[in-house]
Amino acid sequence: MTALKTLIESRRFETFITALIFINAITLGLETSPSAVAAFGGALAIADSLILAVFVLELLARFAVYRLDFFKDPWRIFDLLVVGVALIPATGGLSVLRALRILRVLRLISIVPSLRRVVTGFITALPGMGSIILLLALVFYVFAVMATKLYGQSFPDRFGDIGASLYTLFQVMTLEGWSDGVVRPVMEVYPTAWLFFIPFIVATSFTVLNLFIGVIVSAMEEEHEAEASAEREALQEDQDEILREIRALREEVRALKFGTTPV
Amino acid sequence: MTALKTLIESRRFETFITALIFINAITLGLETSPSAVAAFGGALAIADSLILAVFVLELLARFAVYRLDFFKDPWRIFDLLVVGVALIPATGGLSVLRALRILRVLRLISIVPSLRRVVTGFITALPGMGSIILLLALVFYVFAVMATKLYGQSFPDRFGDIGASLYTLFQVMTLEGWSDGVVRPVMEVYPTAWLFFIPFIVATSFTVLNLFIGVIVSAMEEEHEAEASAEREALQEDQDEILREIRALREEVRALKFGTTPV
Amino acid sequence: MTALKTLIESRRFETFITALIFINAITLGLETSPSAVAAFGGALAIADSLILAVFVLELLARFAVYRLDFFKDPWRIFDLLVVGVALIPATGGLSVLRALRILRVLRLISIVPSLRRVVTGFITALPGMGSIILLLALVFYVFAVMATKLYGQSFPDRFGDIGASLYTLFQVMTLEGWSDGVVRPVMEVYPTAWLFFIPFIVATSFTVLNLFIGVIVSAMEEEHEAEASAEREALQEDQDEILREIRALREEVRALKFGTTPV
Amino acid sequence: MTALKTLIESRRFETFITALIFINAITLGLETSPSAVAAFGGALAIADSLILAVFVLELLARFAVYRLDFFKDPWRIFDLLVVGVALIPATGGLSVLRALRILRVLRLISIVPSLRRVVTGFITALPGMGSIILLLALVFYVFAVMATKLYGQSFPDRFGDIGASLYTLFQVMTLEGWSDGVVRPVMEVYPTAWLFFIPFIVATSFTVLNLFIGVIVSAMEEEHEAEASAEREALQEDQDEILREIRALREEVRALKFGTTPV
Repeated sequence: MTALKTLIESRRFETFITALIFINAITLGLETSPSAVAAFGGALAIADSLILAVFVLELLARFAVYRLDFFKDPWRIFDLLVVGVALIPATGGLSVLRALRILRVLRLISIVPSLRRVVTGFITALPGMGSIILLLALVFYVFAVMATKLYGQSFPDRFGDIGASLYTLFQVMTLEGWSDGVVRPVMEVYPTAWLFFIPFIVATSFTVLNLFIGVIVSAMEEEHEAEASAEREALQEDQDEILREIRALREEVRALKFGTTPV
Repeated sequence: MTALKTLIESRRFETFITALIFINAITLGLETSPSAVAAFGGALAIADSLILAVFVLELLARFAVYRLDFFKDPWRIFDLLVVGVALIPATGGLSVLRALRILRVLRLISIVPSLRRVVTGFITALPGMGSIILLLALVFYVFAVMATKLYGQSFPDRFGDIGASLYTLFQVMTLEGWSDGVVRPVMEVYPTAWLFFIPFIVATSFTVLNLFIGVIVSAMEEEHEAEASAEREALQEDQDEILREIRALREEVRALKFGTTPV
Repeated sequence: MTALKTLIESRRFETFITALIFINAITLGLETSPSAVAAFGGALAIADSLILAVFVLELLARFAVYRLDFFKDPWRIFDLLVVGVALIPATGGLSVLRALRILRVLRLISIVPSLRRVVTGFITALPGMGSIILLLALVFYVFAVMATKLYGQSFPDRFGDIGASLYTLFQVMTLEGWSDGVVRPVMEVYPTAWLFFIPFIVATSFTVLNLFIGVIVSAMEEEHEAEASAEREALQEDQDEILREIRALREEVRALKFGTTPV
Repeated sequence: MTALKTLIESRRFETFITALIFINAITLGLETSPSAVAAFGGALAIADSLILAVFVLELLARFAVYRLDFFKDPWRIFDLLVVGVALIPATGGLSVLRALRILRVLRLISIVPSLRRVVTGFITALPGMGSIILLLALVFYVFAVMATKLYGQSFPDRFGDIGASLYTLFQVMTLEGWSDGVVRPVMEVYPTAWLFFIPFIVATSFTVLNLFIGVIVSAMEEEHEAEASAEREALQEDQDEILREIRALREEVRALKFGTTPV
């Protein structure tokens, strides 16, 4: 067991798995090319199966070593999901599951520390943005319900139900074809529709801007905080030195006082 | 009266109203689905009326408690407006009013403190941006008048009057279809139109950028100011300690002086 | 002369001119509406002429007072240009000159101090950005010459000459219809065109981003510098106080020394 | 040899080369205009050949002076490439090579120090962004393979192979026509396609945002670090002065002690 633990935690094993992920990325990429499949489709399929088998064995080994602690690391659960998706029997038309096999390559994120750090950085920044995301969701919901009620009947494609409205409003927020594609046609039927869409654009732009500012500010704070605390520490140390010197001096003066009144 | 005040300021009452808003959000959302209306449209209508009644009673209770102070909190006025809109009799084709009922869900912002803080943050940042917003409005007005005069006759849809021009210029500022949709067609009639539109794009982009920088800088200033003042305070305290020590030392030296010159 | 100087520098005169600009903005705006012109076009034309006359008199007065110093303030030259444009005789089809009269409203910027400060802020930030703007111009020129040579013959509308190429590349930089409108059609003739356009997009995005970062950083620096220097000063003063105390103490100790060795 | 070195490092020589680059930029620009070529195409061709000859001689001179050190400066290699491209014999249809001659004008970047500094700034910022760029590449590859598998057969133009998918996903990331051009047509065949594209947009926007934040933060850090270290130094010096004073005082007190206990 300890031997297994040493193995799966070794630098060499990590490199081996990383190499396998790269090879798998290439084989899965080649599978999209009909000519490559025609030439050596069999080899690709075998390589894929072998690599999948190694990944399954790896995860089993990790589970054997860490037991239930395995599930405490969210990255392990991520590994389990992206590997596990290939084990679901893809019967009939479920070609989506076959396409999802490429997600396995995302294991690079959980294996390569620098990538993991970037993604963890994203995810840990999210809770602090909770209020703004909630506000954005609220604005989207309210505007989607209104749009469905107001424009749903005339524009079933764009605002037929809440789902369609949410999608169209997302498109409007990204500014893609918001005017010539969405709002101008609506304004031909409802001339005051700009009263609905322009405030929406301004409100969501501002909210998303604030979301971004939040991320920027918190990223900077972190950097700055580290630096400022180092600085503060240096100043503190100096001031402590000064205080020590002064106190020592007081001691000496006091000693002098009693020393010089020997009487 | 005090009992009523205690009630409406209680945490439980707030939770109750929040829950009602959520339920109302769902019922108003379901109303957009014809199948849901067919299945239990009656129940939805009753739920909506009941919740509206509760909201009206709540606002009446708040008014009874706070009297004219009620109108001093802008969030109460906001509540009044979004609830009140449902009480206007929606006669004839005024289905817009029915659609506006969903605005009630925005009461979440005035109820949930974290959302209220975010929105208040936006709004308090605006006055500081006053000059830039005024500048942007000025640029828009001047360019809209010019566009109407120059291109209004040839392109009545886009620049027929000041309103149409303002809308089109807003579209150009968001860069949506500005070239293939707006400027290229204009340039086919007036080949030098790019002399009008490209400066407009550069000027408004820069102005909006400055608006955003202003918001970012002021948000950071706030964060940084709080931190820096804490830092400053710590340093100050240390320096005060040093000064105290030195002064005490001077006292002792002075005492020593008079002590050692016993006459 | 001094009386004239006192007048044109008085707060009341400034308010009067500002009011005239506002009125002129409205009259010039109304001129774009055929119905308003039909109803009281004569009054609008008279108002416009009167206001123009006041502006001309104002500028003459300023010139009489400041003489050649008049031309030292770039805002006065700006005033001269936007007022002067209305004095050029608009013969024949030169309706452009009539449309330019609205530029007069931009005098608000030179009159209202807060607006003037914002615009001055923009303009003074530009020289610091000189290198980046030069780089951007260089990249545009090089890519425009290449695009004209490579795609000019097949796409005369988009890349027929350097001017057309510069315009199209500006459109590509703003990302408006860059793919479906510009690059995909080009790629149908020259399949490797993405090798030209995607580096262009990445390079210009990065350059413009850097331009913006430069503006942000310098704006923050200014804010921060002011604050930091205030902070530094406070700390400095405290440290000076400490030094003073210590030196006073040394004096006293020295005095003590000679005092206690009376011999 | 030393004379040659003095020459090519002289300010005057730099100005001469810069002037030649400018002239070459103009001649190459004029070559795109058929009327200019008709009028004085011969002169343009001669000027181009002469300038090219000077550039070749210049690079030979630099090579003669610096020998293998020539290749240590990446800007020299850049010069070599952009000049060298004109020396490849452009036989037959290889008009691309003729178009690439304009790249020579980019030598301005390697000659003008302020431009070189800006570009060097970009390039040195890249390694720090390595993880994020790798992550972005990974996300693009995974989504491109999936898109090819899922939508390749129905939309060969947009997702026919990995290359086409990568291009289309780049277009989607820039938000150009992502909805009306790309996703809505796909959703007509695969109604759940938004589950693929909206996460892609959110993920890549966030990643690119983080890339930009990284650049902004590191740019600011640099500015701030320089300033903060200057500040720190000033404070340090003051504190050192205080410490020196206190230590001198202790010396004096000690001297006093022994002086007053003469025994």
